[in-house]
Amino acid sequence: MHADVPASNAAPLSELLRLFRDGRPRTRAELTAETGLARSTVRSRLDALLDAGLVHSAGSGASTGGRPAGRFVFNARARVALAADVGATHATLTATDLTGSPFATSSLTLDISEGPEPVLKQLVATWRRLLADADLESAPLAGIGVGLPGPVEHSTGKLQNPPIMPGWDGYDVTERLAADFGVPVLVDNEVNLMALGEHTTRFPDTDNLILVKVATGIGAGIISNGSLHRGAVGAAGDMGHILAPQGGEAPCRCGNTGCLEAVASGAAIAAALRKQGLEAHSSSDVVSLLRGGNVIAAQAVRQAGRDIGEVLAGCVSMLNPSLIVVGGSLAQAGEMLLAGVREAIYRRSLPMATQQLDIVASRAGAAAGMLGAAAMVVQHALSPSVLDSELARPA
Amino acid sequence: MHADVPASNAAPLSELLRLFRDGRPRTRAELTAETGLARSTVRSRLDALLDAGLVHSAGSGASTGGRPAGRFVFNARARVALAADVGATHATLTATDLTGSPFATSSLTLDISEGPEPVLKQLVATWRRLLADADLESAPLAGIGVGLPGPVEHSTGKLQNPPIMPGWDGYDVTERLAADFGVPVLVDNEVNLMALGEHTTRFPDTDNLILVKVATGIGAGIISNGSLHRGAVGAAGDMGHILAPQGGEAPCRCGNTGCLEAVASGAAIAAALRKQGLEAHSSSDVVSLLRGGNVIAAQAVRQAGRDIGEVLAGCVSMLNPSLIVVGGSLAQAGEMLLAGVREAIYRRSLPMATQQLDIVASRAGAAAGMLGAAAMVVQHALSPSVLDSELARPA
Repeated sequence: MHADVPASNAAPLSELLRLFRDGRPRTRAELTAETGLARSTVRSRLDALLDAGLVHSAGSGASTGGRPAGRFVFNARARVALAADVGATHATLTATDLTGSPFATSSLTLDISEGPEPVLKQLVATWRRLLADADLESAPLAGIGVGLPGPVEHSTGKLQNPPIMPGWDGYDVTERLAADFGVPVLVDNEVNLMALGEHTTRFPDTDNLILVKVATGIGAGIISNGSLHRGAVGAAGDMGHILAPQGGEAPCRCGNTGCLEAVASGAAIAAALRKQGLEAHSSSDVVSLLRGGNVIAAQAVRQAGRDIGEVLAGCVSMLNPSLIVVGGSLAQAGEMLLAGVREAIYRRSLPMATQQLDIVASRAGAAAGMLGAAAMVVQHALSPSVLDSELARPA
Repeated sequence: MHADVPASNAAPLSELLRLFRDGRPRTRAELTAETGLARSTVRSRLDALLDAGLVHSAGSGASTGGRPAGRFVFNARARVALAADVGATHATLTATDLTGSPFATSSLTLDISEGPEPVLKQLVATWRRLLADADLESAPLAGIGVGLPGPVEHSTGKLQNPPIMPGWDGYDVTERLAADFGVPVLVDNEVNLMALGEHTTRFPDTDNLILVKVATGIGAGIISNGSLHRGAVGAAGDMGHILAPQGGEAPCRCGNTGCLEAVASGAAIAAALRKQGLEAHSSSDVVSLLRGGNVIAAQAVRQAGRDIGEVLAGCVSMLNPSLIVVGGSLAQAGEMLLAGVREAIYRRSLPMATQQLDIVASRAGAAAGMLGAAAMVVQHALSPSVLDSELARPA
């Protein structure tokens, strides 16, 4: 049975809060004018947001003859989001406010192959330390967001046969962390969260973008109509296993041949350079050789850029993004990689699809995944379904 | 200046209507229980929907002891949507109710290359006849939706350098039709609307699908997270100009070589068959040869399916749809085309992306684009932004 509740509580408070999220202070009269709602409705909804601490008084506005009108503003510090971007050998963690701006961040080294229990224990300890250092131990949490370096079924938070994560297959990350903190836990793969991080913090007005991560492997994250496109089972963006036009018979770890990852990833380039007698065991070795002026490394990176660009050209035809962001450790090769990417995309794509296309290096850099994980938490916590039901609960 | 309006009018009536769109009758008490809204709020919002004719009385429900409770139901006939799917040589038109179900449909032959004025005149006359025949001349219109066989900038409704549509470049279809009917006009390319039509009428629970049209040319429409993905300038789904792995040096009308359309479209197959001495000038000639048991045609169609499948495999890796729908005139080749498509997709895609993937022939068939155009109108007319502002207007 549902009891009758006041309309002002059941009504979408999230809509009023959405206005405030631009950070601008407003009076009650301004809110009434901006929303077209009745004064009484604005008053009761504003009271609910004030009670929840999500909006607070910003002092008085200009007097309009009578007593000065009170002004109200979004209180981004009302809740704390905890987020982590977990890689194979290290993680970056943060506690942010409700705009996704970090109160504090921290990095740690880990070994993902040790399995979920020790790794998640490290994360929990680091988050607790971040909260303590920032004097936020008693602050209410909005939720926890985690990016992991494997295929994640976003709806359950479980990993699906992750190739580099022994012991994690089917493990319930969500349940483990929720048990510690008692708040919603959201899990996604780190490339999706890099795309979300670039979108929310650096390109908020770009509703259609592709983030390509070029590191040991190659993957992509897609923002479609302003939202992450995860696909049917969370496998979207698996760009590394698309057939590269120049892929030939190159064997790939997936069991197929000619995959983009088999010819253009950091691992593939390093292997090719070793065959030519160079010391290269990782993306960063490749970048070092390039920066040291090695011509063979430069040629290899440029060709990898072309290979990536040829596959991306197909994605451009299909998705018509206005922005491609290239990130990951090999992106530190900078313009040499981007030049190859651009060359191939402009050669292969139709004019209509490239007329408004920018191809840039990552702006959020190594923080992209961590910031995306925080943005995922904030989006969830302030979404109509979550916020309206939270605030409709009897106090 | 905004005047104060009653909260019940400015509040999202669209949300209450959304419940009703399942077609189930409800009493006021059931609505109160279902929404958690106050009785008074339900009463005033329901009155607004009744006044607008969007909901009407469905008689009385079971008595609960006192007087019988009135039941209310969505009135799908409250507005009429006009829609057309316009091809190069013919169009299908319809007038539908607010579930997108046709009151009446009609086909006509036309010549798109005559330019917009004569073609649109034909559409207008046909819609007026459909309305008259169905006795709907005085029915309020929800809007008009038009699918066109060229690249459309959806936000403005203007065509962008359409290759087969002389005289249409930059022409304002929206303005022309709005002048005749005085209602919102929405324009999109026909492949997007085929995807929307299949999604809304045949696969409403499938939030991530790709519709591939294989006819004279090849194009795709993408449903991402339940919505059409149009991309930055409406150029998404341009699958025909992705490099086909077996494309080689085949010249394409776009100026590039090796495009999928240059080797696997109806036009390309017909040209290849002519070189082998067969009479084939269109997709339907190819289908006729195939149905007549011609082995050369069968081999050509099967190989076209493989070529399409190899490009689709990349799209599957990138987008992780749960459904691929193959439509267009060459899809009438049936299993011969689909077999090639499936073969290539399963060979090239990772298991995770194909574990829940279905690959089927079009279910809505030749009506897909027309039904998608109607669905576009209904989605727009009943969207929160349009509906709530319409009903908030003083009567």
